[in-house]
Amino acid sequence: MSKYAAPLTDMRFVLYDVLGAEALFARLPGGEATTRDVVDAVLDEAARFNEQVLAPLNQSGDQEGCHFADGVVTTPKGFKEAYAQFCDGGWAALNAPEQYGGQHMPEAIGAVVKEMIDSANLSWGNYPLLSHGASEALKQHGEEWQREVFLKPIVSGKWTGTMCLTEPHCGTDLGLLKTKAEPNADGTFRVSGTKIFITAGEHDFTDNIVHLVLARLPDAPAGTKGISLFIVPKFKVARDGTVGERNALACGSIEHKMGIKASSTCVMNFDGAEGYLIGQPNKGLNAMFTMMNTARIAVGYQGLALTERAYQNSLAYARDRLQMRSLSGPKRPDKPADPLIVHPDIRRMLLTQKAFAEGGRVLGYYAATLVDIGERSEDAAERQRADELLGFLTPIVKALLTETAQECTYNAMQIFGGHGYVAEWGMEQFMRDARITTIYEGTTQIQALDLLGRKIMQLQGAGLRHFVEDISTFCHEQQANAGLIEFIKPLAELTQEWIGLTQEIGKKSMSDAEELGSAAVDYLFYAGYISLAYFWARSVAAADASTSHSAEFKQSKRLTARFYYSRLLPRTRGHIAAIRAGAESLMAMPDALFG
Amino acid sequence: MSKYAAPLTDMRFVLYDVLGAEALFARLPGGEATTRDVVDAVLDEAARFNEQVLAPLNQSGDQEGCHFADGVVTTPKGFKEAYAQFCDGGWAALNAPEQYGGQHMPEAIGAVVKEMIDSANLSWGNYPLLSHGASEALKQHGEEWQREVFLKPIVSGKWTGTMCLTEPHCGTDLGLLKTKAEPNADGTFRVSGTKIFITAGEHDFTDNIVHLVLARLPDAPAGTKGISLFIVPKFKVARDGTVGERNALACGSIEHKMGIKASSTCVMNFDGAEGYLIGQPNKGLNAMFTMMNTARIAVGYQGLALTERAYQNSLAYARDRLQMRSLSGPKRPDKPADPLIVHPDIRRMLLTQKAFAEGGRVLGYYAATLVDIGERSEDAAERQRADELLGFLTPIVKALLTETAQECTYNAMQIFGGHGYVAEWGMEQFMRDARITTIYEGTTQIQALDLLGRKIMQLQGAGLRHFVEDISTFCHEQQANAGLIEFIKPLAELTQEWIGLTQEIGKKSMSDAEELGSAAVDYLFYAGYISLAYFWARSVAAADASTSHSAEFKQSKRLTARFYYSRLLPRTRGHIAAIRAGAESLMAMPDALFG
Repeated sequence: MSKYAAPLTDMRFVLYDVLGAEALFARLPGGEATTRDVVDAVLDEAARFNEQVLAPLNQSGDQEGCHFADGVVTTPKGFKEAYAQFCDGGWAALNAPEQYGGQHMPEAIGAVVKEMIDSANLSWGNYPLLSHGASEALKQHGEEWQREVFLKPIVSGKWTGTMCLTEPHCGTDLGLLKTKAEPNADGTFRVSGTKIFITAGEHDFTDNIVHLVLARLPDAPAGTKGISLFIVPKFKVARDGTVGERNALACGSIEHKMGIKASSTCVMNFDGAEGYLIGQPNKGLNAMFTMMNTARIAVGYQGLALTERAYQNSLAYARDRLQMRSLSGPKRPDKPADPLIVHPDIRRMLLTQKAFAEGGRVLGYYAATLVDIGERSEDAAERQRADELLGFLTPIVKALLTETAQECTYNAMQIFGGHGYVAEWGMEQFMRDARITTIYEGTTQIQALDLLGRKIMQLQGAGLRHFVEDISTFCHEQQANAGLIEFIKPLAELTQEWIGLTQEIGKKSMSDAEELGSAAVDYLFYAGYISLAYFWARSVAAADASTSHSAEFKQSKRLTARFYYSRLLPRTRGHIAAIRAGAESLMAMPDALFG
Repeated sequence: MSKYAAPLTDMRFVLYDVLGAEALFARLPGGEATTRDVVDAVLDEAARFNEQVLAPLNQSGDQEGCHFADGVVTTPKGFKEAYAQFCDGGWAALNAPEQYGGQHMPEAIGAVVKEMIDSANLSWGNYPLLSHGASEALKQHGEEWQREVFLKPIVSGKWTGTMCLTEPHCGTDLGLLKTKAEPNADGTFRVSGTKIFITAGEHDFTDNIVHLVLARLPDAPAGTKGISLFIVPKFKVARDGTVGERNALACGSIEHKMGIKASSTCVMNFDGAEGYLIGQPNKGLNAMFTMMNTARIAVGYQGLALTERAYQNSLAYARDRLQMRSLSGPKRPDKPADPLIVHPDIRRMLLTQKAFAEGGRVLGYYAATLVDIGERSEDAAERQRADELLGFLTPIVKALLTETAQECTYNAMQIFGGHGYVAEWGMEQFMRDARITTIYEGTTQIQALDLLGRKIMQLQGAGLRHFVEDISTFCHEQQANAGLIEFIKPLAELTQEWIGLTQEIGKKSMSDAEELGSAAVDYLFYAGYISLAYFWARSVAAADASTSHSAEFKQSKRLTARFYYSRLLPRTRGHIAAIRAGAESLMAMPDALFG
């Protein structure tokens, strides 16, 4: 069975040393409640809960899966009880506003806890995850009574939430959706239609489930401009909070999936179910994007979390398993063979995981600090800058951390050899679970179009400009630091190249719109690898400057950064060449000639 | 459910137009039996069998899996009957020598049939695959009576074979193996030990199973120089062929795996089982490598086969599924949205699969023609050259075709979006099945060391020299061909770079043995991508020269080659940079500082 220990030392290093979270929390309103002592205690307790309660249910949950019969979903053994403990511990309320019963801890703390949950048990983590998205939508778009009635029980964990977007004929393309909402005389609506791939659409954790459903009002315009959002609870809820009879909605079936088998993925049938409009009519996509952006970053953390757990286990195995002698002579002559870790390519696969886990952690938590600044700062300009940076980084966090999770869970299994392929060791589950993360909440392709098409081209690249400015400032600050020059020099050069490449693509796409789509995915990786290079350079600088970390810790950071710069960052060469090959290389083939 | 149609047009194009198999077969002894008419009829019949008999059992076999109880393995519904049809059709005997009941068709024909089998049903294909390896070992190392008694029933399909190498503490490192073989007075041996991961170790296809087992004789030297190979049948067989009582061996359990669930992967316990020595005492590894090399190329075909089937299905889906409008304006204004295939990144993912499937097919079948030349040519120098080329290409075939299968089955699922992640469509099975192919019969890491360490450095690169010579000859022949210059120029340049890079690594590894292991995997990919570039250039030249293929077919080849050169071949830039980063980037980290 695979193990998990929360990497608290590195988590704290990233939070405090690299990102300066202590000072950040202190200067944001509410900071008096998030001193380092408090945060450290929260993280210790989170580690305990995740290591001891959730992690042991990961493999058994995968093996048992969810059960479905007559519209009822039963989660695997222990899942429901773990959820009760989760709520009792106040974890459901961690980031929610105090007025709705939350603890209003910064999102950066939530990010650390989220990483732990997903490392411990990704399938389980999907139940509270969807509540988080629904909370955000209610917080930002709900009327006050809706927040009172629906948000409070979600914050306490008494109820959970869902996002009902996808329909059989439309996933990415929500403009095609058909679910209808017809007004009743009392101001409620009758919602009818079929939604698929609804995570946590039905389960046995709670008595009620609050579905947030995209649907069309009568006479709504066609396409995405005619979509509204509705609150449709499993059991009807009156405006005063009274829970009534069962609503006209049901889970029709659950999907049999490659992974996240303990997470219920439901077909939800709405048959004139009673619901309330949330936000403005026909503006449902705005509210949906509120949920979606939160969920996208959260899925990025899922990738990070699986990379971390895969790394821990493959590292332990590489130290333990004896196989072959080192090419440069026996390293453990006392043993019948050397441990796997002496072999260069095993080290390459380990270091790749380490570089993506630790570098990805800085990227991921950094995004969370931007959420906090965007929500809490009293300086409007700072809030706007943080929002623009966050908008720019969200597709990178989502796509890069999930795509690298594919590679890292692959590497971890490869280190285990045949033992990785059998269920017993738990490594193959990580690959199966990871596979969904580049698909749900917007595929890598959609993230890439969001990054290049919307965040850079449409919004004139405000977020990119801020980010490049931050990199330049950092490089400038560190230019006299002899210990950092090996990273600063290539980073500064690549950043210049990045700006030039972005302009190149912009120019080409003015005469051919397909240039954008043709460059997008390679551009996302290219941008992602440079972003990680920046965060790795910052990590080395922060480690060097730290007075609380050991010389070994500092050396480990430096050598990992060096590995990243020399072995992974050169992948930008392949991506830039592919981008420059242009649309022609993809669009020239007539559809009929593909095969 | 996923579909499969044997890509006969491309298979024949590769065989006849690119590789000139018609002329090759004609000039090799026995060629009168393999005229184009005969071969075409064989391929048509193979396509029918695989499409109609094996393919429909692929998904049901995955869902049902193998059953195990009291040492008995029951294969999924329909598997046993399909095997009977396979034997009745003479497929088990396709490549075997006529004197043992075989049809002695060239391996190049076997490769095409093998690709079809693995596309149709990879799990099922593993049962006859292991027989093929055992046949080769018996053919090359068995005594005449052993061939009579054991090879003939394997050739007819009446019995199957296995390769029993791995033990719980040793997979890659066979020097550690502990299974013992003690001589009996009658010249037989008592074999005792536990073998794991034995594919087709137990099943219900046949009455008897012929295990080829690596074990140590008493007083054998330690390590790999003390390993011998034994024939240990499930039911005892006398030298005259009489089948006797059950032997002292049993299947202890079967593995629960990520994929190839319908292929039985057995723990085999030998408890003084009666066996015969095959080949020389303590020379078992030689015989084992005979089986292994055959199996490695066959696993390469498994990767190719999954790439092909994933491509077929994702292409059909991309043409059918309507989602979003093209960035350059609606392409199907009559429909509610455009088909996926209009979107550039969908095309990138399709073309990547097409380029690896069709280019990989040339590489794979080319290796098979080398087997035929090496076995059949009457010119000793030609045989030797073919053997050296084959030895050099075997790790590339194995590793490149299986690693690209990971990427291609990933791409195919990504095109399906959420629908790819659910079992219903069958796409996730391809990823799960593909995952074992980079592990079994030697991991990618082992292939890379075999290529760079053994085939290039130890053998002074004879195979590489021949291959580079062939590329140079081709480039020279085509230099006046204006239609080919776009490929010939970069190919010639890269080939020069390849030679230089190989010398660089050789020089560095003289002072530091770790340089070899540090470069190996990146070198394998680098070499693999250039090899495919060569085969793609040859494919375009062959298509242009063909009088039997349509203008559309020729255009499709050219545009795919162009895609390959502009979008995939640049990956060599990342690999060469990683190689040049040297051993330092991997070896500098002290083991204790990994985490």
